[in-house]
Amino acid sequence: MSLKASIRDKLKAVSTATICTALYKRGFRNQMIQDVQPLDASKPTMVGEAFTLRYIPAREDLNPISVFQDRTHPQRRAVEECPPGAVFVIDSRKDARAASAGSILVTRLQVRGVAGIVTDGGFRDAVEIAKLDIPSFHSRPSAPTNLTRHQAIDINVPIGCGDAPVFPGDVIVGDADGCVVIPAHLTEEIADEAVEMTAYEDFVTEKVFEGRSIFGLYPATEEQSRIDFTAWRRAKGR
Amino acid sequence: MSLKASIRDKLKAVSTATICTALYKRGFRNQMIQDVQPLDASKPTMVGEAFTLRYIPAREDLNPISVFQDRTHPQRRAVEECPPGAVFVIDSRKDARAASAGSILVTRLQVRGVAGIVTDGGFRDAVEIAKLDIPSFHSRPSAPTNLTRHQAIDINVPIGCGDAPVFPGDVIVGDADGCVVIPAHLTEEIADEAVEMTAYEDFVTEKVFEGRSIFGLYPATEEQSRIDFTAWRRAKGR
Amino acid sequence: MSLKASIRDKLKAVSTATICTALYKRGFRNQMIQDVQPLDASKPTMVGEAFTLRYIPAREDLNPISVFQDRTHPQRRAVEECPPGAVFVIDSRKDARAASAGSILVTRLQVRGVAGIVTDGGFRDAVEIAKLDIPSFHSRPSAPTNLTRHQAIDINVPIGCGDAPVFPGDVIVGDADGCVVIPAHLTEEIADEAVEMTAYEDFVTEKVFEGRSIFGLYPATEEQSRIDFTAWRRAKGR
Amino acid sequence: MSLKASIRDKLKAVSTATICTALYKRGFRNQMIQDVQPLDASKPTMVGEAFTLRYIPAREDLNPISVFQDRTHPQRRAVEECPPGAVFVIDSRKDARAASAGSILVTRLQVRGVAGIVTDGGFRDAVEIAKLDIPSFHSRPSAPTNLTRHQAIDINVPIGCGDAPVFPGDVIVGDADGCVVIPAHLTEEIADEAVEMTAYEDFVTEKVFEGRSIFGLYPATEEQSRIDFTAWRRAKGR
Amino acid sequence: MSLKASIRDKLKAVSTATICTALYKRGFRNQMIQDVQPLDASKPTMVGEAFTLRYIPAREDLNPISVFQDRTHPQRRAVEECPPGAVFVIDSRKDARAASAGSILVTRLQVRGVAGIVTDGGFRDAVEIAKLDIPSFHSRPSAPTNLTRHQAIDINVPIGCGDAPVFPGDVIVGDADGCVVIPAHLTEEIADEAVEMTAYEDFVTEKVFEGRSIFGLYPATEEQSRIDFTAWRRAKGR
Amino acid sequence: MSLKASIRDKLKAVSTATICTALYKRGFRNQMIQDVQPLDASKPTMVGEAFTLRYIPAREDLNPISVFQDRTHPQRRAVEECPPGAVFVIDSRKDARAASAGSILVTRLQVRGVAGIVTDGGFRDAVEIAKLDIPSFHSRPSAPTNLTRHQAIDINVPIGCGDAPVFPGDVIVGDADGCVVIPAHLTEEIADEAVEMTAYEDFVTEKVFEGRSIFGLYPATEEQSRIDFTAWRRAKGR
Repeated sequence: MSLKASIRDKLKAVSTATICTALYKRGFRNQMIQDVQPLDASKPTMVGEAFTLRYIPAREDLNPISVFQDRTHPQRRAVEECPPGAVFVIDSRKDARAASAGSILVTRLQVRGVAGIVTDGGFRDAVEIAKLDIPSFHSRPSAPTNLTRHQAIDINVPIGCGDAPVFPGDVIVGDADGCVVIPAHLTEEIADEAVEMTAYEDFVTEKVFEGRSIFGLYPATEEQSRIDFTAWRRAKGR
Repeated sequence: MSLKASIRDKLKAVSTATICTALYKRGFRNQMIQDVQPLDASKPTMVGEAFTLRYIPAREDLNPISVFQDRTHPQRRAVEECPPGAVFVIDSRKDARAASAGSILVTRLQVRGVAGIVTDGGFRDAVEIAKLDIPSFHSRPSAPTNLTRHQAIDINVPIGCGDAPVFPGDVIVGDADGCVVIPAHLTEEIADEAVEMTAYEDFVTEKVFEGRSIFGLYPATEEQSRIDFTAWRRAKGR
Repeated sequence: MSLKASIRDKLKAVSTATICTALYKRGFRNQMIQDVQPLDASKPTMVGEAFTLRYIPAREDLNPISVFQDRTHPQRRAVEECPPGAVFVIDSRKDARAASAGSILVTRLQVRGVAGIVTDGGFRDAVEIAKLDIPSFHSRPSAPTNLTRHQAIDINVPIGCGDAPVFPGDVIVGDADGCVVIPAHLTEEIADEAVEMTAYEDFVTEKVFEGRSIFGLYPATEEQSRIDFTAWRRAKGR
Repeated sequence: MSLKASIRDKLKAVSTATICTALYKRGFRNQMIQDVQPLDASKPTMVGEAFTLRYIPAREDLNPISVFQDRTHPQRRAVEECPPGAVFVIDSRKDARAASAGSILVTRLQVRGVAGIVTDGGFRDAVEIAKLDIPSFHSRPSAPTNLTRHQAIDINVPIGCGDAPVFPGDVIVGDADGCVVIPAHLTEEIADEAVEMTAYEDFVTEKVFEGRSIFGLYPATEEQSRIDFTAWRRAKGR
Repeated sequence: MSLKASIRDKLKAVSTATICTALYKRGFRNQMIQDVQPLDASKPTMVGEAFTLRYIPAREDLNPISVFQDRTHPQRRAVEECPPGAVFVIDSRKDARAASAGSILVTRLQVRGVAGIVTDGGFRDAVEIAKLDIPSFHSRPSAPTNLTRHQAIDINVPIGCGDAPVFPGDVIVGDADGCVVIPAHLTEEIADEAVEMTAYEDFVTEKVFEGRSIFGLYPATEEQSRIDFTAWRRAKGR
Repeated sequence: MSLKASIRDKLKAVSTATICTALYKRGFRNQMIQDVQPLDASKPTMVGEAFTLRYIPAREDLNPISVFQDRTHPQRRAVEECPPGAVFVIDSRKDARAASAGSILVTRLQVRGVAGIVTDGGFRDAVEIAKLDIPSFHSRPSAPTNLTRHQAIDINVPIGCGDAPVFPGDVIVGDADGCVVIPAHLTEEIADEAVEMTAYEDFVTEKVFEGRSIFGLYPATEEQSRIDFTAWRRAKGR
């Protein structure tokens, strides 16, 4: 994976909300993976390039429990092939009636150094997954084995996840608000802009707590806001 | 705002469930704001008169990021005009695909003494908002800027929120079960009745924990239940 | 209730995810009660035979608040008749716009020794119910009295709950992932198989944390995995 | 069935819209079977007392295709037992993913003199059913056999259908707008009032086509409207 | 209403699909009123400027049947005030459980010269409305009186309808595919462009029927396509 | 395409309902494409092998209107490459907010000899498409260009369509009830069995119209039913 450490660090320090605004300024309205939440909202921000798995509806004759005895089964193969540092993103067609994966596979991803996992369906063993170090996102817990509804069919192709387009290599950022998809070619400029925006938002938050009105301050339409911000940055070393 | 402190205190001491029953007795079946939950369920009960903001679907040409530079933008103006002690209620058409507001605006509402905030959409920066003192309610976190889907259009008009009718001045009460809308003219009688009901429910709960059957006790169809309750109230000073 | 203590203990020690897989192997795909979650995910696993209550949509003239003065009202009667050790399961037609029950009734169930309660609607007084010892599952909190939308009509008949079929006497198991329905005649064999599967899954989890690949291990297609597991069981006394 | 021919005739001559208004005046807001439409909107109005069939979600082991070889299977038995003149109402839990019934059973109902059939799911062989004389209502066509999702469990018990409560013996009226449920004890007074309302609405429609404003006319708040209506009734012999 | 007859004529001769594409080229993605269909798909195309009515959820005490005796009731007043040539657009919050209007009011609109009516809810008396000359659009038939769920609250304010933003004076065009909202200031240029596009599409359709491939033809990336089109226009006089 | 003419003819003479039952007997419960209907229910039955197109959510920067100028755009290429006799099946993720295709492309498919088209989204120019000879199925009309929500990404890969799994080469059969997917390897045996079942169902329908009870007849549990059927077949030459 080619995501530079410096970019990764920048993205870890900003919020999905800020990234969404930076994307919105460039005309992107559908990069948020809708209706997906962290299993543990207190984890650090997840950042990594998308490695994808595509499910289609399961056909009964093709999905006996014995399919997992085949090493080439796409779900199992994907878990062993997802690069360290990447985010494993599953297209479950927003169907959480069966699990997208369970704690053993997610543990394996963690051990392999994968940066996180996202499905627009649900995970089984949700409590165990929440306790792992690896950040994970889904729509709700779901105990039935994935074979009940999902057949893994493709690895690392463009997919939809939570109504957002996800291309392999796009950068996924996830925090308590959910997950956002940064188009690969924009990662660097979005990261830079988001860091700048975050500094200003932190300044604004401080001022608002001190009692200042948002008029002129948020956004900075008054000269004084810009002057104060410059002073604040200097004082804070940001 | 004209909500008397004594009424506010009574409503802070009762539950939305009890209020719903008192409203039900008077023929009201749709005063619960559906599918809305507190960002932090451990906060004290929220009480205040409704101050409303109405959103319509966003039109792309009318919602560049620059609209917030205009002080008369209805979202920003509403945040500065909402009276202390009021509850800020947003009609987001049950659409949580974009945020209804973020932590900076909610912080400003808190600093201004506003009693709480409710949307039938979602908030961005949900973790930060949850940590504020001001009670807040939404359907789920949502990172995209409100401009992505919502255009603020009207301040303090009657709205729908979570399928409930909300008129400016109605009293909103919110706890872990969600938010209920008390029609303005009924506030006092509902508050009084709910306090009485709560005393009886507390008595019943105590008796049920002691092993008594609900028959004759809940509701109080047996004379003995009423006698015991009278004694209990005296003993408890309620 | 005829559920043997030994079976109950086995089911308390396994997960709904494992049970779902055991059921899937026998051709059952719809035994998970969909979209239902524990009010407190940290409670021990709930196990018990289903005792059911069926609601239909409420008709206004039949549901004044006074109906509860009648001891034969099905909701109240069911609460007093549900056997100790059973799980109280409510068919609320997946409608959480009004409560299925509140804290007083759930407290009474707890005092009577009932093993748990499940609705595919919502509970009022959700925070109080969450604090009780009895495990409880619903789709979301809902403050309005059940009379607002639900009329209790039948006790202990076959019902649908969360799109799953529930026959009186089926065994309900509930954990953080939700609730699963084991057909009565399969309880013993499912319990036995799930215990065995759990042992292997615990072994696998340990090995995966140690760095082993899932190939050959999960499922155990390599001879070495079976040898290691035998040794592990002996060492662990399982 | 005890529905008098004169009442049946009156109800055949009025619309579900008018009946809904008459019910609304008496406090009934949920008697419309929601999201159900006629397979052939040109059929005469359907009227009859409800005879109900209740489905629960199908369990795989209980629903092999061979179950229909049993004459006591509730679906088949209900078709042979539904009284002539009644309306066959099926609670399919608003799930149209599998059929509620097909053309052979509906043909049998027609031959037996049944007045109509309604499901809140879907029918298979929808084109054939539409061509029959018997009026039929569903949400959409659905080819899979009912066993795929539905298990017939109860005959002639109170049910929910399209979010409306249906008690055996309630009178179902169906036209192009859908189906409404008249509580049994109100049938006669609703029929009488609806006939009167229909006369006035026909008069109003005629006047509106002639160019009269609805003010004062609809409703009849002006004396002149009432005078004109009296004359119109005399002229029309209604 | 200021919509020029020439513009109206142009828009009557093009399709909503073509208009959507013209809007898409200018960055508009949400101008289609979603999930709304004509009551009679064979009617001529509806064109007119939006005159809006806003509903909120009905509160029981404010909506007895007697409210219509008040001439200032917003629903009735709107019907009498909507300008000839305009399209009456109702924000029903996508809730078709109760009617947005019935045949008498729609007849009155027709007599008054109104160009059409749209709701994102449903109409009662749907068959009668379908037979009128005035084009009408809804999501599905719905018999219950509007008071059951809807309270008319505002006339001619900006609204949402079927997830599209509608400002008074925007031009609504409706055909068998549904209704699209043209922002007022773009009406003329959209009409002109759509007429041009329609000519080319008609030419393409003819050529495709004759067997030509879409490559190079649709869109016109080959010089020959443009030459043939020029000849075709001359021949057809378009 | 390898679908034999004799099999195609058999499948054209049976219904999707009968095919669903034949599939159900073999353990297939999810082969019906859910919530899809013919644009013209009077067309002959559609039969052909699936040729698929997969859409993902559209990303704004990748979907300017100019993309169609590229001959390799998957949507346009698929239309030119779909084999005569095949059915064109589109995975639109059940999202009908933008069109899956319009009349020009569908006309081109017809001219090329394609057997039909199905999407789990919607078509634009729905009236024109309905008038073509080629059978077409969607969920509802939708005017916005596909670029608004859909990006064509893959040709002839396995997809989900209306919650059913569709593999290239599976046989799609469509009639007024919708579309069913026959796994490729079962086509012949399903066709044969469905023809037999249809003969018996036609016999039963005739007998039911003559007044016979369904008991013993449907299914044929009585010897006499089988005798009569044998005679009926001989008489009818089937």
